[in-house]
This record gives sequence, structure tokens and C-alpha cells, in this order.
Amino acid sequence: MLILGIDPGTAVTGYGVVRTGTSFELVECGVIRTRPEQALPERLKDIAEGVRELLARHKPGAMAVEDVFYARNVRTTLVLGHARGVILLAGAEAGVPIHEYAPADIKKAVVGTGAATKTQVQFMLTKLLRLKAAPQPADAADGVAAALTCAMRLPLERAVAGVRGRARGGR
Amino acid sequence: MLILGIDPGTAVTGYGVVRTGTSFELVECGVIRTRPEQALPERLKDIAEGVRELLARHKPGAMAVEDVFYARNVRTTLVLGHARGVILLAGAEAGVPIHEYAPADIKKAVVGTGAATKTQVQFMLTKLLRLKAAPQPADAADGVAAALTCAMRLPLERAVAGVRGRARGGR
Repeated sequence: MLILGIDPGTAVTGYGVVRTGTSFELVECGVIRTRPEQALPERLKDIAEGVRELLARHKPGAMAVEDVFYARNVRTTLVLGHARGVILLAGAEAGVPIHEYAPADIKKAVVGTGAATKTQVQFMLTKLLRLKAAPQPADAADGVAAALTCAMRLPLERAVAGVRGRARGGR
Repeated sequence: MLILGIDPGTAVTGYGVVRTGTSFELVECGVIRTRPEQALPERLKDIAEGVRELLARHKPGAMAVEDVFYARNVRTTLVLGHARGVILLAGAEAGVPIHEYAPADIKKAVVGTGAATKTQVQFMLTKLLRLKAAPQPADAADGVAAALTCAMRLPLERAVAGVRGRARGGR
């Protein structure tokens, strides 16, 4: 199964496609860039089109979207919410199950600690995916990390859902 | 020309369609409701579909979208940003010019003061559109107010753009 991981951004949205199976394999990674001189609605259109193209081409079985980092600037958070909204919409319209992970969850899954640095995340991505170098640019690496988190967590999440399902079924 | 006004919300998105000309006329107003038990991506899909349907049916010449009110809760602001993002996307994909207004701008345009109460806004909407009663529910009234703000401001905004265009052209 393929997993599409996305790190939302208004200017740069990073993505990574990871294949799961007996091991993890990086299929593709990159960024969707929008032009700063364009108005927000046009930039949202470019982001939505980029994500739809990835969904259509790879037909992933799951999509992992990083939660927006909020705190520093409320206006920035709000605008990021716009970008994230059209990304979730593209996933919902493609009928792909969407998993959302906080930045700390991703760091914990990939490195083992929620306080990991970007360099540590990139180092672990290189090891886990047996790459020669960390995915470039950094935003693409964040998309790959989201996909990898989903790949590592899905078996557990499915097992838990199964146990809950059986518990509800009274078996 | 018709103007579609929208007050974005994750649970309830209000809208109003206003016809401009020698006077202002309310064509339609209402709300797009989403189900709280649904996941955010599905709710965003319902909002996007609702707005697209309005755009396709009315073919407005402009769209007015209220700015999200931010401050109280950053998480709420972020989620509202998601809803607003898919609304702007629907407008951009329909090729409709989008005008964004802060809540205070809308109150100022409709009532004359940015500190107007909801009741004052509803009273003025009733007068300006010659209605028997204020548009219901309240979220629909906010959409109507956004459309009316755009209807009142567009002639001025276009005149200003024209002056700037001529100034740039050296004429």
C-alpha cells in the first residue's frame, strides 16, 4: 500500500509517498510551491490541484496530514488552516482515509522522542528508508516523515480498531 | 449583477445572494449545515459542495467572504481557517472575483459603525433590502450582510482601481 504524507503550507507544501510492506520504501517526494504574488484563493487552487494530481497518480490507500503548528502568530495559523483545509478536502473527495498527526507525534514515531530536531528526523528518515541522503528540500522531508509515521502506526491503529470492533460486537 | 456573500463556519456557513442595480434586492439566503458527528474532511466536503452549488446556480459576478474572527481560541480559529479555505477555493475554481471583509468593515458598511450589534445589523438589512423581517437564521443574515457590503463598496472599489490604472498608464 502507498501512503501520501503531507506537510501543509501556504507557500510550500511538502509531500512524500511511502510504500509499506515488509519494509518501507520512498516512492517520491517533493514540494508544491505557490507564487507569493498571487492572492490566497489562487494559491489555494494551486495547492488543491497539486494534491489532487498526487492522489490521482499514486492512488494511495491512506493520506497522512501534519497538524498545523500553532502559537506564534494567530494570523499565520489562520492562513495555514486555509491551506490545510483544501488538502483535507482533496483527500475526502478522493475517498482516501485521512490520518492527522501532530508534529510531536511524527518526531516521536520517526526518532523516538517528540522533542527531536529537524536534523535528527532527517537522519532517521535516511536510515529507515535506506536513502543515500535526506529527502530535499526540508519541507519534502516533513511530508515523508508524516507518511512514514502513518506507515509505522497503521498496523497498531488497525489492531486497536479491530479490538474495539470485536468488543462492540460482544465477541 | 448578483453577489454571493458568505460567513464561513465549520458547523454552519451562512450565505446570502444580493442583486445590485438601482437598488439592492435579496435573492436568496440560507445556511449550509454540516453534521458534528462527521470528521473534519467530510464536513469540508459538504461546505465545498454547498458553495459550488450556489455558484453554479446563481453565477454571481462577485463573492464576498467574511474574515474569520480570531482571538478567543487558537484551535477554533485554525479549524475555521479550514472552512474558509475550501470556500475561497470554490470561488477561485469558479473564476469569481473574491472580496474579503473584516466583521468590523461589514458592520460599518451596513450600520455605519464597526461596533454595531447583531440586532442593529439585522435591523439595517431589513431596511436596506425592504424585507418584512430580518433574514433568518442569524448566520444567513451574516452572509447577506457580507454580500450587501460588497454591493455597496464595489462601485467605489472599482472607481479607485480605475484611477490607479489610469495613473499607472500615465493618462
